[in-house]
Amino acid sequence: MKNIMGKIEVRAIEELFININPIQPGGRLSPEAMKAVIAYGDGYSTCDWCRKPFRLDKIRKPPIEEFHDELAKFLGMDQVRVVPGARRGFQAVANSLVEKGDSVIVSSLAHYTEFLSVEAAGGVVKEIPLDENNVVTAENTARKIEQVRQETGALPKLIMIDHFDYMLGNEHDIYEIAKVAKDYDIPFLCNGAYSIGLMPVNGKEIGADFLVGSGHKSFASPAPSGILATTQEWADKVFRTTQMVGDLTKRRFGIKEVEMMGCTLMGANLIGMMASFPTVRERVKNWDEEVKKINYFSEEFLKIEKNKILSEMPRKHTLTKVDTTGSFDKIARTHKRRGFFFSDELKERRIVGEFAGATRAWKLNTYGLTWAQIEYLTQALQDIARKYGINVA
Amino acid sequence: MKNIMGKIEVRAIEELFININPIQPGGRLSPEAMKAVIAYGDGYSTCDWCRKPFRLDKIRKPPIEEFHDELAKFLGMDQVRVVPGARRGFQAVANSLVEKGDSVIVSSLAHYTEFLSVEAAGGVVKEIPLDENNVVTAENTARKIEQVRQETGALPKLIMIDHFDYMLGNEHDIYEIAKVAKDYDIPFLCNGAYSIGLMPVNGKEIGADFLVGSGHKSFASPAPSGILATTQEWADKVFRTTQMVGDLTKRRFGIKEVEMMGCTLMGANLIGMMASFPTVRERVKNWDEEVKKINYFSEEFLKIEKNKILSEMPRKHTLTKVDTTGSFDKIARTHKRRGFFFSDELKERRIVGEFAGATRAWKLNTYGLTWAQIEYLTQALQDIARKYGINVA
Repeated sequence: MKNIMGKIEVRAIEELFININPIQPGGRLSPEAMKAVIAYGDGYSTCDWCRKPFRLDKIRKPPIEEFHDELAKFLGMDQVRVVPGARRGFQAVANSLVEKGDSVIVSSLAHYTEFLSVEAAGGVVKEIPLDENNVVTAENTARKIEQVRQETGALPKLIMIDHFDYMLGNEHDIYEIAKVAKDYDIPFLCNGAYSIGLMPVNGKEIGADFLVGSGHKSFASPAPSGILATTQEWADKVFRTTQMVGDLTKRRFGIKEVEMMGCTLMGANLIGMMASFPTVRERVKNWDEEVKKINYFSEEFLKIEKNKILSEMPRKHTLTKVDTTGSFDKIARTHKRRGFFFSDELKERRIVGEFAGATRAWKLNTYGLTWAQIEYLTQALQDIARKYGINVA
Repeated sequence: MKNIMGKIEVRAIEELFININPIQPGGRLSPEAMKAVIAYGDGYSTCDWCRKPFRLDKIRKPPIEEFHDELAKFLGMDQVRVVPGARRGFQAVANSLVEKGDSVIVSSLAHYTEFLSVEAAGGVVKEIPLDENNVVTAENTARKIEQVRQETGALPKLIMIDHFDYMLGNEHDIYEIAKVAKDYDIPFLCNGAYSIGLMPVNGKEIGADFLVGSGHKSFASPAPSGILATTQEWADKVFRTTQMVGDLTKRRFGIKEVEMMGCTLMGANLIGMMASFPTVRERVKNWDEEVKKINYFSEEFLKIEKNKILSEMPRKHTLTKVDTTGSFDKIARTHKRRGFFFSDELKERRIVGEFAGATRAWKLNTYGLTWAQIEYLTQALQDIARKYGINVA
């Protein structure tokens, strides 16, 4: 295959293989998004019709303003902005709410970008322990809040919990946690990077003050892209407009929002999100089927002797952590290609996306695979097992 | 023309028209970038080969690490990161260096995103007056520093000056300002959003501590994309890695950089920048020719009676502010389409990118137009003038 230029290869993984990469499948572009990316690839492509008040989310052609309104409705929130990745949503909220030394409650499975957003704002993370099923519960959240209050003399300034975590793909008890947050009057950010765009998510039903999503992770959109949604109550704070006045010129840029750095996600990434939106709106209705597929996969996967699933069971999410220490890793220990034997076998069967070389605990994601692909995938794994003398029930 | 979907039109302005929009021409994709955007459009497309230490700028396939090294050399700086827009570069620097109440020196023509980055960090902007040519000089910078010291009892924490400003496209005295900054031992950020990628820019020669560029403005790249470059001296501060430790799990994410929020610009936008890089490296060598073209344009433009150019003359940049109050605006005042008559006339001649309806002071940018297009553009403007009885010399 010829390269695009220099050492940059043409990427055709999604076209040529079954991809079980844990973070990639939800961000595969829809055909409409690909068309949008081509048409709006040029830098400031979204700015042709930018008119007063000169802010990205107010542009009507292409229908960016309308998209913002509909996205807010879709998420059951009052206001929404697009941002360059979920992390920039965490950053905006943390920088608005957290002062130096303040505590922020996160999960023991919190994504590292939550850590960073708190650190950048000068705060300190306080982790909630997991229960025996590796789930963050309301009870443990309340206990952690009390502990922070006791230790620091102050309540945490923010609670930031993943709807589904990046490590196990477990569902955490965000509905009950939201109630605890309300009881303590602490704002609650729900990180929906692994749920918004894949399954129905309604911020009002959750009781979230902030809802953050990822375009490239779960909204069939180019990277970086993300969503920050909030309620009327919090919009004035997190989407506050600039108050800075030039001391000499007296210039003001009143409409621009401080934490958004003004316009946020111009160009192809935003139009890609917009073009994928109808697809996303439809696909979330099929989440149950996606869950059925991962549970079918799990069942078949566990027929391979000593295989384990580390994520909660039955699966509620397609992102799943598995353990093949007793099966494939046993082979890897004496194989001349070590753990890469497993990648070789998968690749030979046109399957990619596992962490190459890893044969102990590793993650996969079956999102978007057809039933035929799911069956093929499970058979491929069982075939590999049999080939190396591992029992398959 | 059919829409991509819903109300999203196919954008073909760059294909069908001569585009004189002030902010768009430097961000038009190169053909290689367009190929890259198509191949890497899917969300986490850059992450296929992410291996230890798990950070975007360390990925070797596609050659992201190599690109970072070469980009740093190209800019004459020690270290570089890509960011989602120049504004995210300002934000990272301001948040690292500025504490609540600190002063930051900016130009009286500073871009609003510089204001926002200072405001988000809790600082206060202090503007340097322009000289009689609307240029920021070293002398006025030194005077402003002294004034701030006198008024606040402390030196400013940062000086942030545009190489070329967004309003007039004037060149500011960044070389001498860098010396002043050094004399006072104040870090100096040079905003090269309108220069990096268009003309040769060397941070060491300037004496800049930080150099910020824009992908979608001047690097033939999709939005949002940008560059933050710095010296070895400042890299440890602005690219500092996370020190946060999970209180319960003791987790650390040591390699991740706080102000970058970890990985910064994954996906098509980064690969677009990389694919445009060879083009950009070549095109900066032709900057003199671009300057010749805008000066030819200016000369012809001024043949239209009462036309003025508000930017410094002779032009050193293709971004130029013009004044047609005495010519086209006079027509607009009695025309039934008001200022839009001028847009209509331009559009009929396949020219777009002026601010529709504006006939007093407005901006244009001739970057990247061929000589034939420049001649066509000047003739078109003179034709319109003649059509409405305005004298052309």
